[in-house]
Amino acid sequence: MRYHKIPDETVRRLPVYLRGALHLSKSGAESTSSQQLADVIGVEPWQIRKDFSYFGDFGTPGVGYNLSSLIKQVNKILRLDTGHRAALVGVGNLGSALLAFPGFRAYGFEIAAAFDIDRRKIGRRKAGVAIEAVAALSKLRSRDIRLGIITVPEAASQRIADALVGAGVKGILNFSSRYLGVPRGVKVITIDIAMDLARLPYYMPAG
Amino acid sequence: MRYHKIPDETVRRLPVYLRGALHLSKSGAESTSSQQLADVIGVEPWQIRKDFSYFGDFGTPGVGYNLSSLIKQVNKILRLDTGHRAALVGVGNLGSALLAFPGFRAYGFEIAAAFDIDRRKIGRRKAGVAIEAVAALSKLRSRDIRLGIITVPEAASQRIADALVGAGVKGILNFSSRYLGVPRGVKVITIDIAMDLARLPYYMPAG
Repeated sequence: MRYHKIPDETVRRLPVYLRGALHLSKSGAESTSSQQLADVIGVEPWQIRKDFSYFGDFGTPGVGYNLSSLIKQVNKILRLDTGHRAALVGVGNLGSALLAFPGFRAYGFEIAAAFDIDRRKIGRRKAGVAIEAVAALSKLRSRDIRLGIITVPEAASQRIADALVGAGVKGILNFSSRYLGVPRGVKVITIDIAMDLARLPYYMPAG
Repeated sequence: MRYHKIPDETVRRLPVYLRGALHLSKSGAESTSSQQLADVIGVEPWQIRKDFSYFGDFGTPGVGYNLSSLIKQVNKILRLDTGHRAALVGVGNLGSALLAFPGFRAYGFEIAAAFDIDRRKIGRRKAGVAIEAVAALSKLRSRDIRLGIITVPEAASQRIADALVGAGVKGILNFSSRYLGVPRGVKVITIDIAMDLARLPYYMPAG
């Protein structure tokens, strides 16, 4: 089943809801309310109810949301229920941090391959993953990898994106601060850390 | 002048517009249209016009937006026009990547101090910034630092947030995947990389 017409901003919040639900479930709760979930994740209750209404409300009035069915359904909507193998390209400081990052597993992600152009890095391991030459990128398709994470310098990011797309990758998490050109059918999400920082002063009291 | 009632989602997009405008300006353009800006940054033109309307349209019909006044005004709304000094806590892989990251300067940010608890790191320099003991955090106020960047392990993040707030920090960029409790008047923006990755499969073609 494929869900349609869910606004991007709702899709952006779904992983937040999922994380909150996983947190409550781990604490032993079996059900939750939009108010309780709101308290955990810092999103307004009405927003939660509105977002959930896009796929038919999961909740029961007076009872709330059953956590295990909520988690199952959000996982299914986000297509996280099948597990995903990703390739990371660029094993510098940021790439190394991501390879060691424990948070991906909660959503069913595994960084299954890592690539770099530095001969001194190729053949070594980082966080249990062998570093391969970028030339080996072309073999991703046969390794069941359809997600790419780009942590190379800006000047190389478009070339790496092209190589990933050529190898059958359909989703790219881009950490370089440049927009990547990709064909239709390939989704790029750019994480520009400076832009998140740039939102902070707006909310800070003057002084 | 303080602008009120701008939706968070609009504030989220303002740095994106700013980056697009800076890019066009650097390429030699003097003015732009919502369509041209849309092409550069991948946001719909109507969305751009709607967002700009919150602070009085900057554009002139048939002429478009004057880039230098657009840049100046968005910088002012986001309070990026004054420059900001930040302290980074946790000089691991991610912290090191951020210290070396060139992208902050475009928005007037400078990571002016770095802290760690590892004695082997304290006293060394990373990307030109001396690494100090976490105990020295308490002196931030006198150093004109009101922004904090937390890149410590999850278990330590709340304690570091408390120390930053105690030292007068009013804005925190949090990279640990946990919600931080802070007093009113302090803004936390959490960057949870796994949650951005979690949005990707939704957009990928099934197969």
